[in-house]
Amino acid sequence: MTVTTPGHAYLLGVGPGAPDLLTLRAARILEDCDVIIAPRSERADHSLALKAVQAHIHDQQVLEQVYPMTREDESTRTFWTGIAGEMAGLCKQGKSVAQITIGDPMLYSTSYYLFAGLRERMPLDSIHITPGISAFQAGAARLRTMLTIQEDRMMLMPATDLTAVERALDECETLVLYKAGQVLDDLRERLRARGLLGNASVVLYAEQEGRESLIENWEEQTPPSGYMATVIIRLGRKEWS
Amino acid sequence: MTVTTPGHAYLLGVGPGAPDLLTLRAARILEDCDVIIAPRSERADHSLALKAVQAHIHDQQVLEQVYPMTREDESTRTFWTGIAGEMAGLCKQGKSVAQITIGDPMLYSTSYYLFAGLRERMPLDSIHITPGISAFQAGAARLRTMLTIQEDRMMLMPATDLTAVERALDECETLVLYKAGQVLDDLRERLRARGLLGNASVVLYAEQEGRESLIENWEEQTPPSGYMATVIIRLGRKEWS
Repeated sequence: MTVTTPGHAYLLGVGPGAPDLLTLRAARILEDCDVIIAPRSERADHSLALKAVQAHIHDQQVLEQVYPMTREDESTRTFWTGIAGEMAGLCKQGKSVAQITIGDPMLYSTSYYLFAGLRERMPLDSIHITPGISAFQAGAARLRTMLTIQEDRMMLMPATDLTAVERALDECETLVLYKAGQVLDDLRERLRARGLLGNASVVLYAEQEGRESLIENWEEQTPPSGYMATVIIRLGRKEWS
Repeated sequence: MTVTTPGHAYLLGVGPGAPDLLTLRAARILEDCDVIIAPRSERADHSLALKAVQAHIHDQQVLEQVYPMTREDESTRTFWTGIAGEMAGLCKQGKSVAQITIGDPMLYSTSYYLFAGLRERMPLDSIHITPGISAFQAGAARLRTMLTIQEDRMMLMPATDLTAVERALDECETLVLYKAGQVLDDLRERLRARGLLGNASVVLYAEQEGRESLIENWEEQTPPSGYMATVIIRLGRKEWS
């Protein structure tokens, strides 16, 4: 089945890592496209996204791109502008090109920069985005922790600024923190001080084979260290009024 | 391939409505299970979730369940407790039973009530949850609107309490409002008063064939009316500091 168009670009979310959490749409686009661009962080020895889609690779051209792990906006943009140029060039040759990213391209993804570069180089109608399951969804499902119901508010944010995190505790029913790996100790003490540690769960590497850790109750268990940590804090329910 | 276990229950998110936004996992569980429980709102003439998975139905038993559209907690719980009893009974007979729900079971889903009923009737280890693409993800991808990057905070909430919505505008970089269909006029005036109407997009029935409406810029276009409206408001970017 032909599902891609020559000259078009596809930004695909491939989900958290488990090969079967890919959507049927992403799988079909991957199987049908000419070129797959797979990002790999300079800290990783392989592309997590590429591993997740391995079953769908036959004779497409696969380009691994090692991107810098930096919190510096300028060099990140420069790198991804280069990839956008390469991707747009392949599209101009009539190829269909898919870029794969772990999670969802719209949530904390390097696809943000790639898309900005592509839209300066290609007609908007030839750029397609496919959503993917984000780590917080995979983690909540594995923990069997319902996130929201009725009138609940859910805040999703990185755990880097713990003052902002403390403010958010008062403004939602469910708080989901990404990138919490490096602040777990400090965060635990702040939650303990507020009596909220028993309301918090921690998931590391949700749905990544052999690496996943599930801590249902942070008061009772201590998570191992790890970069890709998601913390889910249940603050209450705002029922129908 | 056998992917389900006799006597186990599966709560499956099937995504926003497009049949190809199902995950491979949900598709395989559906194809393999004995019974599929499909909820249908009393307002709808068919089950959206069942329509989304039609391609995976062969000779499984399909039970449509008409649930009440009420904002009354007690009757909602009573209804879903009944379904949980039925589902647990089928599991006790050794059947594998899947319940399908539009979107993600962890986000504003009736699966919340079903899960509460099941966990009183079955071992927790025999209840499995599969995440699904939620409408805000599908809508953002169709609009090509990036939701978060770097240090951004995203708030997801229903649009029912507009005072709470106005407060949230000051506490995040991206605000996503669900169930906005009935308050679109009031919300538009409040956003206009704050000069934010041009930062807002509206998606109705994202990825539902023949019903989808995409309003990229609410200042320039007026959305049609519809119950399943999602509003995405971009309030700024909180870049790396």
